[in-house]
Amino acid sequence: MIAEILSCGTELLLGHITDTNATYLAQSLAALGIDLYFVSQVGDNQERIVETLERAWQRSDLVIMTGGLGPTEDDLARESISTLVGESMQVDPALEAHLRAQFANAHISMPEPNIKQATLIPSARALPNPIGTAPGWWVEKDNHILVAMPGVPKEMKRMWENEVVPALSPYVGGIIFTRLLRVSGLGESSIEERIKPLLHSTNPTIATYAKSDAVDVRITAKAATREEAERQVMEMETQVRPLLGRYVFGVDKDTLQSVVGRLLKERKQTVAVMESLTGGLLSSTISDVAGSSAYFIGGLVTYATELKAQMGVPRAILDEFGAVSEQTAVAMARAVRQRLAADFGVGITGIAGPDLQEGKPVGTVYIAIEGPAGVVTSKAPMWRGSRDDNKRYSVLAALNLLRLTLEG
Amino acid sequence: MIAEILSCGTELLLGHITDTNATYLAQSLAALGIDLYFVSQVGDNQERIVETLERAWQRSDLVIMTGGLGPTEDDLARESISTLVGESMQVDPALEAHLRAQFANAHISMPEPNIKQATLIPSARALPNPIGTAPGWWVEKDNHILVAMPGVPKEMKRMWENEVVPALSPYVGGIIFTRLLRVSGLGESSIEERIKPLLHSTNPTIATYAKSDAVDVRITAKAATREEAERQVMEMETQVRPLLGRYVFGVDKDTLQSVVGRLLKERKQTVAVMESLTGGLLSSTISDVAGSSAYFIGGLVTYATELKAQMGVPRAILDEFGAVSEQTAVAMARAVRQRLAADFGVGITGIAGPDLQEGKPVGTVYIAIEGPAGVVTSKAPMWRGSRDDNKRYSVLAALNLLRLTLEG
Repeated sequence: MIAEILSCGTELLLGHITDTNATYLAQSLAALGIDLYFVSQVGDNQERIVETLERAWQRSDLVIMTGGLGPTEDDLARESISTLVGESMQVDPALEAHLRAQFANAHISMPEPNIKQATLIPSARALPNPIGTAPGWWVEKDNHILVAMPGVPKEMKRMWENEVVPALSPYVGGIIFTRLLRVSGLGESSIEERIKPLLHSTNPTIATYAKSDAVDVRITAKAATREEAERQVMEMETQVRPLLGRYVFGVDKDTLQSVVGRLLKERKQTVAVMESLTGGLLSSTISDVAGSSAYFIGGLVTYATELKAQMGVPRAILDEFGAVSEQTAVAMARAVRQRLAADFGVGITGIAGPDLQEGKPVGTVYIAIEGPAGVVTSKAPMWRGSRDDNKRYSVLAALNLLRLTLEG
Repeated sequence: MIAEILSCGTELLLGHITDTNATYLAQSLAALGIDLYFVSQVGDNQERIVETLERAWQRSDLVIMTGGLGPTEDDLARESISTLVGESMQVDPALEAHLRAQFANAHISMPEPNIKQATLIPSARALPNPIGTAPGWWVEKDNHILVAMPGVPKEMKRMWENEVVPALSPYVGGIIFTRLLRVSGLGESSIEERIKPLLHSTNPTIATYAKSDAVDVRITAKAATREEAERQVMEMETQVRPLLGRYVFGVDKDTLQSVVGRLLKERKQTVAVMESLTGGLLSSTISDVAGSSAYFIGGLVTYATELKAQMGVPRAILDEFGAVSEQTAVAMARAVRQRLAADFGVGITGIAGPDLQEGKPVGTVYIAIEGPAGVVTSKAPMWRGSRDDNKRYSVLAALNLLRLTLEG
């Protein structure tokens, strides 16, 4: 099955927004084993939309449209599809009742042009959109499928996952089940090296994706039933996990900070941090988790060396080893643990750049964690990214060390 | 002049990367007054690249390609363009000498297939790429222009700004000069309301862009000379500025944190912060500026209420007004200013969500700044975004209040 994506919206062609919908759909199509050969962005112009649709309809089995389903004159997806297949839009009574009820519930009078959001053509059925006003269209004709979804990413993703992917099952040889294994502390190429023998597997398939906070190993299986697909993924997971060991920190939507939070909550323990090169980003990342006030006491951003001393790092250590040293990181972890009365204290110090400091090169980072069982430390590999990158890598390294410490 | 963008790379069609190059180019084309009607992404497949190029060549005056200029078999931009215009690639001696010198300087022996990065066709001239190995191509034939640039965003942007935009001057009616006015504290629609009479201007043109940290008002002029274009932009700027007043905090690449940093440096003054709902993000944003250690002493992330008291917020204030109150924000600013011996202390407290706190709704945020001239406070408008959004908005509001305070 060959697919093609068409994203509609003048805002795309003015550069006001980026087509991240296409990226999301491309990833999902790859996991489904559907080939994607072309992606296009076209403005809100019916002639150009129809021109692009006609070509897509000729050369692809599945055409996926996003955008153009709003209620205004500029929203031309339905009109263009009707032209493509030579059918007329008609108001569907059930869709109309539903649309009018949505407006009534919100105590807003419905502008009459909005009625076009309740239309269908004979070859189309509606795809429900419980979080917006525009239902999608599933069009099937002459052995081709066309799917039209809203451009709002949240509505599109929900419709894709809940409505379109299940409906595509007969065409992709079964039900699809996907699991992400999230990996920290290993680069993408090292991961591929370790799982090399499995990368050639065709069902389940395995692929790696480098994200800003981790590398994802994506396992996707197709089977006749969801249970069977899940079983196949699980079987592959039990082959992958030993190859990656403790580098795997979670699955699917887990983040290092959510995993650390869950571990601390389970143990009813708390954490506090003293950070310098990361400038508050470690604290901020920990507190990104809703409910983090249950275990995150707070942080000290001791940017000035003098402030480290004021917050309990012995001056002798600062003088002898310098502000960027393993000894100072350990003293920071100890000081913040004691002062803030936390179960775990994290200290992190280093040089984000662009200038070196104390004669030490940019990218030098020391991390220390003091907990009930003692101290662990880590010297990060020398990073050579931008200032922002070095801050981000340092935060991830600190969270990963904390995660490993908590896991014991 | 009608333009079309073609982005090449199988990684785009697998969803491994998003086509942000197209967004960047779309914005720039809009500023140049060049109409963009179609954008496409195609994989590393010569047949499909040529098919898409041929159509673009027919319907557009200017075809902009990115990607496919690397040295491997998968990099097919040059081969596809040669097929399009019916010409043969030949090694250019000057490009070859330059390429071999780059490898020699890096003490790497050049793999022979790389020689294709030194080729040209008769209708093409090379566009220099001093930060990469792949020069671009400027192809002119039969009243059409085709520009091929590397896919690496940094290399593409540099080549576009320094080589392509100047070369397009004759086709867009002159030299282009652009200035961004950066605005904080006013929404995009309020800005458009204020500058409404100017939005219809055709040279210079004015457009607004909502970015994550501010709204940009972009002024772009075309003229016969750069001096004339600059003069026109300046003239428009003097019309726009009075309409936006102190909401304009900077130009071009300025950020709130860089402007605050510059103001503090000029005065040889320092700042320290005590923050709760923002969880360290305010400190982290201030420290994103290289050289911020000159004026940023540090921050206290007093996530737990008890920690606020420990760090100098009077218990009586916490008890009487609650942790989320103007009084507590003022006490936080005062306490951190004193304890950290800074010229300016910033206090920020509020509720990021998703749960309410002390019976106060999500999005309630109080900011206070104590400086040599006294205290200023601000209650942010009630934000209704996600937890992350509320943190980000709060940081921007605090930085903007600090900026206004420093400006006097």
